Amino acid sequence: MTGVPGVGKSTVVKTAFKQAEEKGIDVNFDLVNFGDMMLKTAEKEGLVKHRDEMRQLPVEQQHSIQKHAAAEIRKMADSGDVILDTHASIETPNGFIPGMPEWVLREMKPDVIVVLESRPEDVNKFRKKDLGDDFRRREVDNIEGIERHQSVNRSIAMAYSVFTGTPIKLIWKPEGTLPRAAEELLGVLSA
Amino acid sequence: MTGVPGVGKSTVVKTAFKQAEEKGIDVNFDLVNFGDMMLKTAEKEGLVKHRDEMRQLPVEQQHSIQKHAAAEIRKMADSGDVILDTHASIETPNGFIPGMPEWVLREMKPDVIVVLESRPEDVNKFRKKDLGDDFRRREVDNIEGIERHQSVNRSIAMAYSVFTGTPIKLIWKPEGTLPRAAEELLGVLSA
Amino acid sequence: MTGVPGVGKSTVVKTAFKQAEEKGIDVNFDLVNFGDMMLKTAEKEGLVKHRDEMRQLPVEQQHSIQKHAAAEIRKMADSGDVILDTHASIETPNGFIPGMPEWVLREMKPDVIVVLESRPEDVNKFRKKDLGDDFRRREVDNIEGIERHQSVNRSIAMAYSVFTGTPIKLIWKPEGTLPRAAEELLGVLSA
Repeated sequence: MTGVPGVGKSTVVKTAFKQAEEKGIDVNFDLVNFGDMMLKTAEKEGLVKHRDEMRQLPVEQQHSIQKHAAAEIRKMADSGDVILDTHASIETPNGFIPGMPEWVLREMKPDVIVVLESRPEDVNKFRKKDLGDDFRRREVDNIEGIERHQSVNRSIAMAYSVFTGTPIKLIWKPEGTLPRAAEELLGVLSA
Repeated sequence: MTGVPGVGKSTVVKTAFKQAEEKGIDVNFDLVNFGDMMLKTAEKEGLVKHRDEMRQLPVEQQHSIQKHAAAEIRKMADSGDVILDTHASIETPNGFIPGMPEWVLREMKPDVIVVLESRPEDVNKFRKKDLGDDFRRREVDNIEGIERHQSVNRSIAMAYSVFTGTPIKLIWKPEGTLPRAAEELLGVLSA
Repeated sequence: MTGVPGVGKSTVVKTAFKQAEEKGIDVNFDLVNFGDMMLKTAEKEGLVKHRDEMRQLPVEQQHSIQKHAAAEIRKMADSGDVILDTHASIETPNGFIPGMPEWVLREMKPDVIVVLESRPEDVNKFRKKDLGDDFRRREVDNIEGIERHQSVNRSIAMAYSVFTGTPIKLIWKPEGTLPRAAEELLGVLSA
């Protein structure tokens, strides 16, 4: 499950679960956040003490952390359904890096990659209202940046699919369409 | 030769052939439809009875069918020029899957990948007027979906080129530009 | 360092160097042009006599030249910092080919890929005013073509990153923003 920060990934997931319950559809997924898993890995390896330090790590170490976290997640997915909350690409000071580069992708072997997209204006509004102080300081009123990040995510997701054949599900969720977006996700989860 | 359904692939090919004849240029291509070849393969393997069932097959079987069909086409191309009518990406219930994922691409080794693009409105108009009942029921007035599919196709084609170095020829054919688009294709065919 | 012809790659690089000097930041890069290096290689191998003939070469020979030039550059980068002036994709009569296809990319292993982008109108204006006669004849007032080439470059750069994990730095430089664009580049160079 991918999408730019503030696009509403967890809300869509929760709503899809609620819809499943109402419809009596059995979906039973572990929710895993790739950022958390990477942070845990990095802390365990003594590389960082706080999430913000992750972006400052040298590229090689970021890769190594991604790999170890991916291995951990694959283990989980071997024994049950997993929704991985992650990023198609991550914005670093040196540019966009793939959330799932070749080596991660080949280990992780996701069944579907969902790319949740929304209007940049809606994402921006959500970021201003609802995200933590750190985020607010960094990214307020960055409509153009959000648009660029979404375009990058879509391109990079298509490259992922060529490697693995993994279907790329684009879900379009502008403001006011949460129920429909959640239904689309539920369709994928219950396939 | 790729492009969304209804963009006019076969019309452009036929027009290019006609232009070649008029100009005395010798082009001699077998026309192969990847969907037909996949269907034939799937029928032969007893997996489906009708084209519509193809989209319902599990992902692994779709991959296997793609592979076998690609092998068949490569054999044909070894003994003569072939234009393959196919899709850069295919829209399934679980999302877009690549028409030519890594394993297909490496076997098929196309000389050029043509991506025929048009205005979403023109494609939509054509779909309403000229395509079969099945298609009409599914896809009428889906301007936004056509736009998204074309954007996906372009991204995925660029990923193809990185694997193989295959040139990606984008041909832009809005309504009223058929002769010019056909000429562009002819340029590629007679190169 | 990539970007469509006329987007201002060398100007941004020079300005970043000047800023570095003013700020007392030590940056010490060799500037290498991939086109020049390819031309040199092709001339050495007796394949062409003039730059314009490069586009006419068969695809296989173009690949071979790319490879040899990449090997040459890697050698240079092993003994000092190098900025490579190149193209994310190259427009040939048969379509866009990747400037850094898989085999080149895996040898070259760039630390960062910069994609310099601007408004198509600004690029067009620059091409009309400042580029050589050859270019002028071919590409004047090709706003749509510039837009397409930039979109292709961005998609292809994202595919590069999936192979290698290389960060893709998009730098947006519409007219009037040279100092800011150069600062962004300097940030990458001095990282």
